[in-house]
Parts: sequence; C-alpha cells; structure tokens
Amino acid sequence: MNNHDKTPVTVIGLGLMGQALASAFLRAGHPTTVWNRTASKAERLVADGAKAAATATDAIAASPLVVVCVTDYTAARDLLDPADGWDGRVLVNLTSGTADQARAMAAWADERGATYLDGAIMAAPDVIGGDALIVYSGPRDAYDAHEGTLSSLGSGTRHLGDDHAVTAFHEMAVLSLMWNMLNGFLHGAALLKAAGVDAASYVPIAAQGIGTVSAWLPGYARSVDDGEYPVLDSTLDGHLAAMRHLVEASESLGVSAELPALVKDLAERAVGAGHGEGGYAVLVEQFAKP
Amino acid sequence: MNNHDKTPVTVIGLGLMGQALASAFLRAGHPTTVWNRTASKAERLVADGAKAAATATDAIAASPLVVVCVTDYTAARDLLDPADGWDGRVLVNLTSGTADQARAMAAWADERGATYLDGAIMAAPDVIGGDALIVYSGPRDAYDAHEGTLSSLGSGTRHLGDDHAVTAFHEMAVLSLMWNMLNGFLHGAALLKAAGVDAASYVPIAAQGIGTVSAWLPGYARSVDDGEYPVLDSTLDGHLAAMRHLVEASESLGVSAELPALVKDLAERAVGAGHGEGGYAVLVEQFAKP
Repeated sequence: MNNHDKTPVTVIGLGLMGQALASAFLRAGHPTTVWNRTASKAERLVADGAKAAATATDAIAASPLVVVCVTDYTAARDLLDPADGWDGRVLVNLTSGTADQARAMAAWADERGATYLDGAIMAAPDVIGGDALIVYSGPRDAYDAHEGTLSSLGSGTRHLGDDHAVTAFHEMAVLSLMWNMLNGFLHGAALLKAAGVDAASYVPIAAQGIGTVSAWLPGYARSVDDGEYPVLDSTLDGHLAAMRHLVEASESLGVSAELPALVKDLAERAVGAGHGEGGYAVLVEQFAKP
Repeated sequence: MNNHDKTPVTVIGLGLMGQALASAFLRAGHPTTVWNRTASKAERLVADGAKAAATATDAIAASPLVVVCVTDYTAARDLLDPADGWDGRVLVNLTSGTADQARAMAAWADERGATYLDGAIMAAPDVIGGDALIVYSGPRDAYDAHEGTLSSLGSGTRHLGDDHAVTAFHEMAVLSLMWNMLNGFLHGAALLKAAGVDAASYVPIAAQGIGTVSAWLPGYARSVDDGEYPVLDSTLDGHLAAMRHLVEASESLGVSAELPALVKDLAERAVGAGHGEGGYAVLVEQFAKP
C-alpha cells in the first residue's frame, strides 16, 4: 500500500473509541496524526506509526480531514475551541450527542470556514475497522469526497441526509431500541433466575425471539409509515392477555414488575383507544404523544 | 409417505394457530383428527384430509397424542374438562399461560391418567411446520417418545426440563424481550417520524443495532450467571449519559419520554447503588428486586 495515495487524517480524542479509530486509519494506510490532552494515550499509536501532534492547532494543520471522538460535545468544544487553522478542513464529529448539539457544532464549524459532518458509531470499539456501522449527516459532497477514507472505520458506512441533526436522531432511535432490548433480556434473565434457570440456557431461545421480531420490523415500519396497522402477528388484544401473564409471573416470582407493567399499560391505553383488534404497531401512536 | 407409520394426532382448538398446527401434521403425513367447538372451523382441514371428531371425547379416543392450543388455560379447561378417555394419552398444551397454570394442568392430567407436556410456540402461525421454535417441558420420556411427531410443527423443537413450569417461564422471558424490543423500535420510529424521517429508512440501522446487541447477549448472560459485571461495551455511566440525551431528544421533538425516562431511571438506580463504572448487565439486579 502506498501511503502517498491515502488522505492524511487527524484523530482528536484518544479514549477507547478514539484509539480504535486511529488504529483503523493506520491499518488502512492513512498517514495518521493524533492528539489527546493527556499525551501518554498516544504512545501505543505512535509505536504503530501515528504521528503525535504537540497541540490541537498542529493536529488540525496536519490533515484535511479531522475526526473527533470524545465523551460529549462539551468536551469536544473544550478541545477544539482553542485551535486555529480550520479554514477548508472537513471536521467529522463522532461524539454522541443531541440534534441541537450537532446543529450548533455545524454553525461553529461554518464560522471557522470548516465543513462539518456529524457522525454516530453504531458499534463497539472492537469492531471498528471491521463490520462497524457508522452513519453520517451533513453536506453530501463533503461525505462523498471522504467516503473512501471513512470506510476504513467500518464496512457499514452510510450517509443519512444533509441535515446535520439526522444522525443524532437515528442514533437516539437505535440506542432506544438497544436499551429496551437489553432491558427485556435482563428482565427475562431475572425472571428465569428466580425460577432457577440460568441465563446461558436463555440465550438461544432469546436469539430465536429476536430473529422473529427482526423479521417483523419491515412490516411494522410499513404500518408506521402508512398510519395503518393490520394484524401482522397477533392482535393487540392477544398481546395484552399475555402481558398480563408476564406481570403476574413477575410478581409471583418476586422480581420487578415495573417494566412489564409499563409494557402492559401502553398496550392497555391503545386498546382503550379502540385498537384491540388491530396490530401491535399502533403503539407508535402512544409513543408519538408528548 | 406411508401414513400407517405415522403417529395419529388430535388437535383441539382451531383458531389461527390451531389450524396451522393441524395443517403441519397433515403435511407431515400424520393421521390428524381435529375438534373445535365451532365445527365450521374444521372445514378447510377436512378438505385437506383431516378427520373431524363429533365430540371432544371422540377426538381424544382417536389419537395417543392430543395437542391443544386455544386462547388461554381457562378456555382449555372448558374444552377438556367434559371429555373422557384420557388414560394413557399424552396431552400437549401449546396454549400461552403462567407457570402456575401449567402446574395445575399437569395435576389435572395426572388425575386422569394422562401424561402432560407443557409447550410454548415461539413463532407466528405462518412459520409453523417451517423453522418455528416450539419448546416443551414435562416428563422427558414422554417428550422423547413424541419428538419426531412434534418436530413436524417446527424444526426448532426443544425440551427445556422436566418441571412443567419451565416452559411458561421461558415463554414469559422471551415475550418480555420481544415486547421491549418492539417498544424500543416503535419509540425510535415515533422519534424519527417527528424529525421527518420515515420508519423504512430506520429498519436497516435498527437491524444493525439488533445484531450488535445480539452479539453481546452471551457475555451478558455470563455476567448474570456469574453475578459479576465487567464492562463489555460501555460503562453504565456512559450509557446513562446517552440515556439523558434520549430523554431530552424525546421531549424536544414532542414525543413520549415515558419509556426513555424509565430506561434512564433504572440505570440511575444502578449508578446510585455504586455500579456506574461497571457493565450494563448489572441492571439485572434492579430487575431482580420485587
């Protein structure tokens, strides 16, 4: 690989994720400059071929593409505000944050003559450079110009839209799904543990349930987009009857019924609104209310 | 296929799922007797080769293996109580219910000289006879004797244990996971809809998030079983920071913050209990409390 053909990249912020990003750029042959407030975090990367910048301004001067990934937007602004030399740079911010923060950061970059892409990493550090999904929003032409370089970070590189906020919304939506999935799994594991069953034996059955629900999602999405909710699996009444069993089972086993009770309450409200004989996806209307 | 080699089977209850079960037995070449209180529901199955019994007692006399699948255990008992001739039969109940109901039904069968297997269908009617997962609990020898016949209903046939209640607990656990997953997806879809993004474009990104979480579950299960919660993805503190963004995003877009607020509250309680620098799976301890 001839590194002279590869876009130089700067990575700012060398936590677990930042180090994984810099490593992936290095492995893909990009001349990689790194900077972190605590300089020692750059040591391993320098041993692997990265160049450690002395200051944030030096780091920005080193590459047309600057990738930042820190704890939150406040930390990002603290690191980037003092630096100069933004004009003409493309700033890619992979820090988790809100839509408002993404828009404010876009305005901040614009004032300095930089082009801003907001990104979200939908993966853990250990799959960066592998099949990680990383999504971006902001000016399409800036994304297109650097897509090849960004794809070093993960094979699932995707541009979602020109509005800088879209990535944050998608990230929030996916995180919501992930936490609820984990909570459902852990509540189930707590239930089984109380019944004397270990979580390891639950995993393959959980995986089957996940596969079943995954196959439903395109149909659910169509229901949401159409605003019509045909029965795709069971009627909402059928789901609700089983939800009541779950609340009873939780109570009788002495585990928390708080989450199952909310699941049941949401369905009861939709049934109360006249949707008992319709499909489950009608719950989106409950979630759409403030 | 020579039907004389195949165990005769009776299916009681011909709702959507009961019809799918009877059809799968017929397709697999089992002499199949069906009975439903409303006899007209048997018509299509009779056209496909099933024999319609005139009474529940006749239906039970027809086959050594009797499969029942109705709305709930009360309905099952209403249908089965008046019938005679249970001695020596194996009763397989695929109706959704609680562990207590499964144990009571086992005692009911025992009084009548029948052997009871409690089952749970982890699939929608349209995949019965295909790759459906159906799990069973109760006496292992009765399961082993009929495993070949039961596998006509789905390739994912599995015996979970001799305790009749285990299936109900697993079913509840998987349903809990499935509803929470659906709610997470639908809340995310509501969020994106409010931001002007359609649910169809959310599906592939949701699928990636689901794949990520699925890969975490064996590690989470190990944490639960060991009672130790190393950081497998992010620290609980890291998750909590992003959960606060989700509550803010929900509020700022005018969608319900109820579900994200519960997600956040659960994590806050675990952080309050001193687990902020540990892994997310420690939340199982929150779910384990009454």
